[in-house]
Amino acid sequence: MQTAPKVALVMGSDSDFERLKPCVKRLKSFGIDVVVRVISAHRTPDEAERFAKNAKAEGIEIIIGAAGKAAHLAGVLAAFTTLPVIGIPIKSSTMDGLDSLLSMVQMPKGIPVATVAIDGSDNAAILAAQILALKYGDIADKLVAFKKQMADEVMEKNTKIMQEAEEL
Amino acid sequence: MQTAPKVALVMGSDSDFERLKPCVKRLKSFGIDVVVRVISAHRTPDEAERFAKNAKAEGIEIIIGAAGKAAHLAGVLAAFTTLPVIGIPIKSSTMDGLDSLLSMVQMPKGIPVATVAIDGSDNAAILAAQILALKYGDIADKLVAFKKQMADEVMEKNTKIMQEAEEL
Amino acid sequence: MQTAPKVALVMGSDSDFERLKPCVKRLKSFGIDVVVRVISAHRTPDEAERFAKNAKAEGIEIIIGAAGKAAHLAGVLAAFTTLPVIGIPIKSSTMDGLDSLLSMVQMPKGIPVATVAIDGSDNAAILAAQILALKYGDIADKLVAFKKQMADEVMEKNTKIMQEAEEL
Amino acid sequence: MQTAPKVALVMGSDSDFERLKPCVKRLKSFGIDVVVRVISAHRTPDEAERFAKNAKAEGIEIIIGAAGKAAHLAGVLAAFTTLPVIGIPIKSSTMDGLDSLLSMVQMPKGIPVATVAIDGSDNAAILAAQILALKYGDIADKLVAFKKQMADEVMEKNTKIMQEAEEL
Amino acid sequence: MQTAPKVALVMGSDSDFERLKPCVKRLKSFGIDVVVRVISAHRTPDEAERFAKNAKAEGIEIIIGAAGKAAHLAGVLAAFTTLPVIGIPIKSSTMDGLDSLLSMVQMPKGIPVATVAIDGSDNAAILAAQILALKYGDIADKLVAFKKQMADEVMEKNTKIMQEAEEL
Amino acid sequence: MQTAPKVALVMGSDSDFERLKPCVKRLKSFGIDVVVRVISAHRTPDEAERFAKNAKAEGIEIIIGAAGKAAHLAGVLAAFTTLPVIGIPIKSSTMDGLDSLLSMVQMPKGIPVATVAIDGSDNAAILAAQILALKYGDIADKLVAFKKQMADEVMEKNTKIMQEAEEL
Amino acid sequence: MQTAPKVALVMGSDSDFERLKPCVKRLKSFGIDVVVRVISAHRTPDEAERFAKNAKAEGIEIIIGAAGKAAHLAGVLAAFTTLPVIGIPIKSSTMDGLDSLLSMVQMPKGIPVATVAIDGSDNAAILAAQILALKYGDIADKLVAFKKQMADEVMEKNTKIMQEAEEL
Amino acid sequence: MQTAPKVALVMGSDSDFERLKPCVKRLKSFGIDVVVRVISAHRTPDEAERFAKNAKAEGIEIIIGAAGKAAHLAGVLAAFTTLPVIGIPIKSSTMDGLDSLLSMVQMPKGIPVATVAIDGSDNAAILAAQILALKYGDIADKLVAFKKQMADEVMEKNTKIMQEAEEL
Repeated sequence: MQTAPKVALVMGSDSDFERLKPCVKRLKSFGIDVVVRVISAHRTPDEAERFAKNAKAEGIEIIIGAAGKAAHLAGVLAAFTTLPVIGIPIKSSTMDGLDSLLSMVQMPKGIPVATVAIDGSDNAAILAAQILALKYGDIADKLVAFKKQMADEVMEKNTKIMQEAEEL
Repeated sequence: MQTAPKVALVMGSDSDFERLKPCVKRLKSFGIDVVVRVISAHRTPDEAERFAKNAKAEGIEIIIGAAGKAAHLAGVLAAFTTLPVIGIPIKSSTMDGLDSLLSMVQMPKGIPVATVAIDGSDNAAILAAQILALKYGDIADKLVAFKKQMADEVMEKNTKIMQEAEEL
Repeated sequence: MQTAPKVALVMGSDSDFERLKPCVKRLKSFGIDVVVRVISAHRTPDEAERFAKNAKAEGIEIIIGAAGKAAHLAGVLAAFTTLPVIGIPIKSSTMDGLDSLLSMVQMPKGIPVATVAIDGSDNAAILAAQILALKYGDIADKLVAFKKQMADEVMEKNTKIMQEAEEL
Repeated sequence: MQTAPKVALVMGSDSDFERLKPCVKRLKSFGIDVVVRVISAHRTPDEAERFAKNAKAEGIEIIIGAAGKAAHLAGVLAAFTTLPVIGIPIKSSTMDGLDSLLSMVQMPKGIPVATVAIDGSDNAAILAAQILALKYGDIADKLVAFKKQMADEVMEKNTKIMQEAEEL
Repeated sequence: MQTAPKVALVMGSDSDFERLKPCVKRLKSFGIDVVVRVISAHRTPDEAERFAKNAKAEGIEIIIGAAGKAAHLAGVLAAFTTLPVIGIPIKSSTMDGLDSLLSMVQMPKGIPVATVAIDGSDNAAILAAQILALKYGDIADKLVAFKKQMADEVMEKNTKIMQEAEEL
Repeated sequence: MQTAPKVALVMGSDSDFERLKPCVKRLKSFGIDVVVRVISAHRTPDEAERFAKNAKAEGIEIIIGAAGKAAHLAGVLAAFTTLPVIGIPIKSSTMDGLDSLLSMVQMPKGIPVATVAIDGSDNAAILAAQILALKYGDIADKLVAFKKQMADEVMEKNTKIMQEAEEL
Repeated sequence: MQTAPKVALVMGSDSDFERLKPCVKRLKSFGIDVVVRVISAHRTPDEAERFAKNAKAEGIEIIIGAAGKAAHLAGVLAAFTTLPVIGIPIKSSTMDGLDSLLSMVQMPKGIPVATVAIDGSDNAAILAAQILALKYGDIADKLVAFKKQMADEVMEKNTKIMQEAEEL
Repeated sequence: MQTAPKVALVMGSDSDFERLKPCVKRLKSFGIDVVVRVISAHRTPDEAERFAKNAKAEGIEIIIGAAGKAAHLAGVLAAFTTLPVIGIPIKSSTMDGLDSLLSMVQMPKGIPVATVAIDGSDNAAILAAQILALKYGDIADKLVAFKKQMADEVMEKNTKIMQEAEEL
């Protein structure tokens, strides 16, 4: 019996993994099980289809798709499921991330992709947690704590910078 | 006692309402209660704060923020809640929607906004439904039916265009 | 037995058909059979897969994919075939065609899409004819004649404008 | 009793401080007191509100807000005060500063942000001085001297480059 | 003896006047005297210089420069004065306002232009009022009232849209 | 014997002629002979080559090339001559003129194109006149008069707008 | 007698060769003969013309043109031949590849360039192979094998990343 | 008595000099006298005016203006002279040169700037030589030789790359 919530993180290329580790770690920090996959919408389209079609049955509740350039991955996965799909546009060597962003966010009517910032690895995880928190009360609590912790960190940095600024 | 799921649609300006009606209608078509508000992140910031802080307690499960130009609204609402916030960038009279898109999607670490396409009114509603479907089984069923219906419509159009093309 | 060369024109939305008629007519003018389809990469992904996988067996030699916004269609079709895929980025109501262009042309290593200009309906047909001309001698002849005719038309316009300019 | 004019420099992240030091130093060079704060519009929104609402009462005459990506900070501060707010868009790792610029400058009717160049740390300080010079005569004098000094420096560089150019 | 505060609005072309009327009206609504001029940085550069150099002596406290395309006007005026200069980038027939915006906001170190949104006629006036309010108490009071009135208007629109939304 | 200076205006498409008439008229107003041609860099490349190679021998002193989209015309003409080539990027139905501008101005080392503003028909003529004025004294005189006339026109508009503004 | 298919790779500058080696190697891996040339559309336009006009007679079946900045090369070659021309936009030191892309892809009606991704060296070769496969059965077989191999590589990377992810 | 043609190269900042040396050297290689100046349109506007107004009387025939960011320099110089003004947009630390390009090229009707590529130092010199060649026969001869030399260099590189390509 599944007890923990489960999220899939699918990346289009293994070269993106380094930038996606914060996503995995953040998800785990909320007590969320993470399924990580390398699936190319274009080089392994059958696998993309198979994965997206079976995701719900395998207990996955949210799919995060991360890809660069003509970043079709999240949209292709969304085509085969009714689960919410979150997209992380990855900046590649040209166009400064604009190509990935537009390829992800400008989805046609009917098939949305919940797009976060370019290279927004961490935020994709937090968004997934916010969604799951509607159903899992403990994640909701963790989010409140996380939000407070972020605020505290900013306040600490504020104190530090205030002092540094005095000395300029 | 609340029985139906509830989503808030907050727009930055009443002039955006026409473009947002499909969002309201689509939400209702899934049996979702919709709270519609005009709140300006900049002209009524206290109201934005109050609304976002109380949203959860008032039974709202998702907030959709729609705004144009320096489209801060969704991000500002997200700052005051841990509920998932969906952003609809509205195209205004200059910059072809790029300003709204970047202002919404490029959120800093910690506070995501689930951004859909520029003027993506319908998709914001569908994304909300996909999120709520994790919790409400009947919405999940409706989404499956909706997805099938969309496919059927495309197939019908296909038949029609195939015939028209013959005659060219 | 197939005698005429065959090209498929697949559009993501029937609303693009008007802009694609020049493509159909131009293909026919070269004596090329045209299969026209409305297939959405996102709303009818199974149909996209089925169509692309069977295209070669059905005698199709080139697939032209036309789509707007996050224009995944051409790339998705290319994922399921080794036939050459030509992409026409369609300008939609926002972003002036840049989103469609980048979504089409920036394909990852391994799966190219031969992209023509935004709304380049006519050129997609001519490119298809150029490709088929490698195999079908009569198309090669027609292209030479077409190129001459285009030049003649420019020369005629030149004569006309030269006269008009005198009178300014 | 307050004698010196006072400006607040609020940054969205302590990582921007290095780029903002010229702003602090320049303000001090005009004899302006500088209050430096790290406040995140999204992670510490209550603090942003509190700070902006109290700024005037605390003797602050101008607020400078510096932030990157979806750079809401200056706009959020402006929402809570009638003091002039100057915005410095900070270039982050993607989009070459365009996202920050548009998020700051494209403010809706009613709530302006006086935006300077991307990473325009120094110019924000000079603009603040120009504003304060309307009220504080000594700053007006210092600005005239500063303008003359800038011109002199250009003239000196001119002499130096003229010589170098001869030898090419 | 000058009693009322005075602002100059300089436009690069008389064709921009229609879009700038809200700026004039808004300034007057705050009790600010407005000097309106058509001066081209490129066609009447001597006039631009003369105007900017004399502005302070003529009692002008802020200069607003509005121009399109390669919108040098505000920067050119700023070069000849230490008064604060506000820039309004005007959208022309190409480039959707991006050219004007970048030409205005990306000023080099030493000579800032306080840039507002593209076609941000109204906001330039409000920014000017915010600056003058540091010195003129009655404008400060008017700004507080204006801010409250804007909030009230949003609240009224909210009530209206809430009702309309019910009926969808 | 040639007495009047001669400039060629070459357009890539007769559909651009309307926008180029001001260029022809302006050249004539300076007493410059104008040779107008429709030559497509891509549809009549031999003609482009022939024209550019012979231009000097035919007494042409400057070539103005006007084209839209992938606006190669000016660059192609420049490849075949050492005469100065002025480029007018024409805005077409997509990309707001940015494609034409970049295709024209970003010429590689060795073969410059003197690019003016998008749709800058008038300025191309004035630039040509400025170049010819180095050699033809009467054009230099006309330019001085033209500059004065432009300034006068701005001054007149200034008077008119000053009055209109009073009444707002 | 020619037995192997032949493709020409023409680059605008020898400095692009490093980035184009994958294209040459990939073509050879499909058993395709490759003719490599450095031809500048602007510095050696006669050579460009001569090469394109003779290409067909010399047994070349496809021309690949690679160039940066105002990347006219592919279009110029296409003007002189009816062979299919593939374009590789090369990213140069400014504009992040956008200039090259637009200069190549936005070709006018009549003369298409089959454009691949910015710096898409490998994909140009694969597209050429896909085109030739219509005529040469062995290339078709190699493409099928290549597609399978790419899929296998992704699957292997998937296995590797899945393990690495567990340990995070 | 002046015998050699004379061109002025004016840069907005001495930090641009390194990138402009090729311009100086190229001009000298054509036997053109070069006057090099550092003049800031904004920090030394009087000097800019003085220089541009006197340029013709001092025997200068063409002014080249090079500047980055809000690159007003060339336009400001053009405002004070009827000499042809060539603009070199300099890429700075943000916006990849787009800001400088648009600020230079998008000049209003009446005052053209002959803009070359971003950082197009060499081409500005060649354009100046092409303009002067209309008047100075020896420069015309040198340009023909230079064009031939460029072609020869490309041909040599072609030979070299052809050999390298064989070995891949």
